[in-house]
Amino acid sequence: MPIQEGDLVLIQTKDKRFLKRITPGFNINYGKRTLKFEQIVGKEYGSVVEDFYLLKPNLESIILYGFKRKTQIIYPKDAFYIAFKLGIDRNSTVLEFGIGSGALTAVLSQLAGKVIAYEVSQEFYRNALKNWETFGLCKNVEATNMDFSEAEVQEEFFDACFVDVREPWLYLEKVHKVLKKSATCGFLLPTTNQVSQLLKACEGLFGGIEVMEILLRRYKPVHERLRPEDIMVAHTGYLVFGMKIV
Amino acid sequence: MPIQEGDLVLIQTKDKRFLKRITPGFNINYGKRTLKFEQIVGKEYGSVVEDFYLLKPNLESIILYGFKRKTQIIYPKDAFYIAFKLGIDRNSTVLEFGIGSGALTAVLSQLAGKVIAYEVSQEFYRNALKNWETFGLCKNVEATNMDFSEAEVQEEFFDACFVDVREPWLYLEKVHKVLKKSATCGFLLPTTNQVSQLLKACEGLFGGIEVMEILLRRYKPVHERLRPEDIMVAHTGYLVFGMKIV
Amino acid sequence: MPIQEGDLVLIQTKDKRFLKRITPGFNINYGKRTLKFEQIVGKEYGSVVEDFYLLKPNLESIILYGFKRKTQIIYPKDAFYIAFKLGIDRNSTVLEFGIGSGALTAVLSQLAGKVIAYEVSQEFYRNALKNWETFGLCKNVEATNMDFSEAEVQEEFFDACFVDVREPWLYLEKVHKVLKKSATCGFLLPTTNQVSQLLKACEGLFGGIEVMEILLRRYKPVHERLRPEDIMVAHTGYLVFGMKIV
Amino acid sequence: MPIQEGDLVLIQTKDKRFLKRITPGFNINYGKRTLKFEQIVGKEYGSVVEDFYLLKPNLESIILYGFKRKTQIIYPKDAFYIAFKLGIDRNSTVLEFGIGSGALTAVLSQLAGKVIAYEVSQEFYRNALKNWETFGLCKNVEATNMDFSEAEVQEEFFDACFVDVREPWLYLEKVHKVLKKSATCGFLLPTTNQVSQLLKACEGLFGGIEVMEILLRRYKPVHERLRPEDIMVAHTGYLVFGMKIV
Repeated sequence: MPIQEGDLVLIQTKDKRFLKRITPGFNINYGKRTLKFEQIVGKEYGSVVEDFYLLKPNLESIILYGFKRKTQIIYPKDAFYIAFKLGIDRNSTVLEFGIGSGALTAVLSQLAGKVIAYEVSQEFYRNALKNWETFGLCKNVEATNMDFSEAEVQEEFFDACFVDVREPWLYLEKVHKVLKKSATCGFLLPTTNQVSQLLKACEGLFGGIEVMEILLRRYKPVHERLRPEDIMVAHTGYLVFGMKIV
Repeated sequence: MPIQEGDLVLIQTKDKRFLKRITPGFNINYGKRTLKFEQIVGKEYGSVVEDFYLLKPNLESIILYGFKRKTQIIYPKDAFYIAFKLGIDRNSTVLEFGIGSGALTAVLSQLAGKVIAYEVSQEFYRNALKNWETFGLCKNVEATNMDFSEAEVQEEFFDACFVDVREPWLYLEKVHKVLKKSATCGFLLPTTNQVSQLLKACEGLFGGIEVMEILLRRYKPVHERLRPEDIMVAHTGYLVFGMKIV
Repeated sequence: MPIQEGDLVLIQTKDKRFLKRITPGFNINYGKRTLKFEQIVGKEYGSVVEDFYLLKPNLESIILYGFKRKTQIIYPKDAFYIAFKLGIDRNSTVLEFGIGSGALTAVLSQLAGKVIAYEVSQEFYRNALKNWETFGLCKNVEATNMDFSEAEVQEEFFDACFVDVREPWLYLEKVHKVLKKSATCGFLLPTTNQVSQLLKACEGLFGGIEVMEILLRRYKPVHERLRPEDIMVAHTGYLVFGMKIV
Repeated sequence: MPIQEGDLVLIQTKDKRFLKRITPGFNINYGKRTLKFEQIVGKEYGSVVEDFYLLKPNLESIILYGFKRKTQIIYPKDAFYIAFKLGIDRNSTVLEFGIGSGALTAVLSQLAGKVIAYEVSQEFYRNALKNWETFGLCKNVEATNMDFSEAEVQEEFFDACFVDVREPWLYLEKVHKVLKKSATCGFLLPTTNQVSQLLKACEGLFGGIEVMEILLRRYKPVHERLRPEDIMVAHTGYLVFGMKIV
């Protein structure tokens, strides 16, 4: 189906990507070229206009170029790994707290049956909801503007959990209680000091602990001069996973 | 529900993992300890017996410790990234060829509505089917023992495609034809020479090309001596993604 | 000895480094602070003035912050590795061509007895000489503004060689001729295509071939929040080393 | 000069390296081939015999394949970086303690005027001395079998220092005292906990602190199938450098 007024388009230039909603009056300048509303509407996704590619946005591009950020997002490279690492599928109910800008939630929601999410900051909470609404995501997410410590949740209810808060050790016992036996809990932490502190707190509660980083190294896609990008994102956080023991 | 005869258990020792089906007579030795059938049956997942953790297997552990390999598998770190990078969801029909041992197929099948898969080697094909059957995976996968070049497929039918064969450039035009406009196609290739050759062949067919590696760096999960593992898997393959242009 | 007028000082702020020659009228602004000539002259190296550290420049800081660059320099992380990898010591005479801004030359000159260097570009050549002169380096270097292909050199004269030109394969036979038996030759190349082409050309001339990258990952030096830098230099070039076979 | 009885030869096969002293009766088997004393003596370094390359050993190969190890060595990739990072040259006197197997000492000794080294373990000390003697290295090194805390050393005597002990913070004040103003001190530490503790202890004593890792990623040197090695050394230690402040 051709691109229509109001549609989202991922516009790819030689080396940049833009995610735009195509409304009358829209135009984009890049290098010496301009691309206007009239040149886009009616074209098929995948068309090439004036060296611009008009592509259909996918979840990754929506998160990277569409989501408003009130806080550091969980990068797609990490979110994709986390989602599967949690061992969830369409029958799973997942707990997430510290949803930030809602990027991981959007990824989890694709794989899980249901996501139940908590965010204590009203500003972050509202922004996440706005992000999901803007892009029609997270229909199976139930989010609450509350610190998880105050949430009333059933014991052994969740199939998995992901925690993205500064002091996850403060919540560990409650997390342990609400997870099903052997369910996986994941954490993202920026510093080694936090990882050490978390590992200590996990003793006796979680087993099969793993700690890792996911590094994404990009290459310039030029067939006759193939080489890595000069600069890369070298750190987004350490990931920690463990499974509830009893 | 407690572990029953015939159940799969992920047995975690201090530093190793085993995936085992618990049948009468089963026992496992590790270090100076032995774990027997009678000690496992009736226990809850998540129990700790004699320093062994009895955990519930998830998709990653099934692929890593359960799948029989007739060929190099696509590692979970890559498969998890690929699945989401393809931009698929429960409404998507995905094409995959070169299924090898069926690891990526199992991951794609969790996220997609349907996977249609081809494998030219009879040995690999049978092994993949056996892997899926053993672990009750891939119910929404339709696999054929055939080279994709001989498959009869409808034009603009697929929402995404993943190719894991030695000479993907030989299939590019057909892949382009059967993909929907702007759909993503991914590739895994071990050598830089292949990446160069593929990039050249993609010109005019695929846009928004990206080339990358995913590196997984593990840490020893010891709170008072946190440090990376001494050795890591340094290369599993280069990933290439592009979107069909018209 | 205290810092005197005309001395070089490596000025370290909270997160930046500057290499400056201290002359009357000198001042530097950083953040909300200013540091003036009068505050520096007469101080000992190692002094702390207004949150600025006044440090003694070493070779690395001279290369990184002092050398004028007419071309991409060979980074210290690579140069340090190359120098030792060439297997040279104070009795060695080393050949280098493609000296660029003269950074590697300055490193080689510390370890070798003598460096004989060629640079075809007059602009690069003059700049390198200027860099060395400014910082009193490379007394044991004999540099010529000439393409190495035109240099008259004795057979089996050099103990080692380093080549940093775009098409090193054009020079391989001559390099082979002027090296002593079993001497090491190194190369730096930005793309995988060049590495492939070089490897092919080395057959029959060089043995014990090694190809590698050196990656430097920096951490924020904060004891209670230890973590890698967000961004890193991800690629400066592939290194290739081989030893002359006969 | 041809290889003579008693000479060291670096024997390179298709994918392995051996460092051997060539004495009567010597022979080496690799794959289906054998190489004997008679086939080596009288050959030039750089010769190819039966698919074996007969190469001249350099410092790196002596350390990697010749040194006896009583403890984890400092890898050449780290040692080469450390040596230059210390900012030393032929006029420098360097302090090293925790010499272990003597690998770093051998590298420092090439660049510095003099190295003064301490090792508390008698076993390590004797082994290091043996390593140096066997390969004719470290003539400008003065080593003592003593803990550095007990060494009598002059104030502001050393141009640089490297510390490789488990608890470097115990020695910091003494190190600070014996270093010249603004001199560089380096440390190697395996865990993040140690790095944090050291960083804290350095406050007020050392400035311009840097923390980093050096990663060496090797490629298979095959021109038509260029690709990284499957496995790499992922961690040898964190490096910390600081300069004495006053």
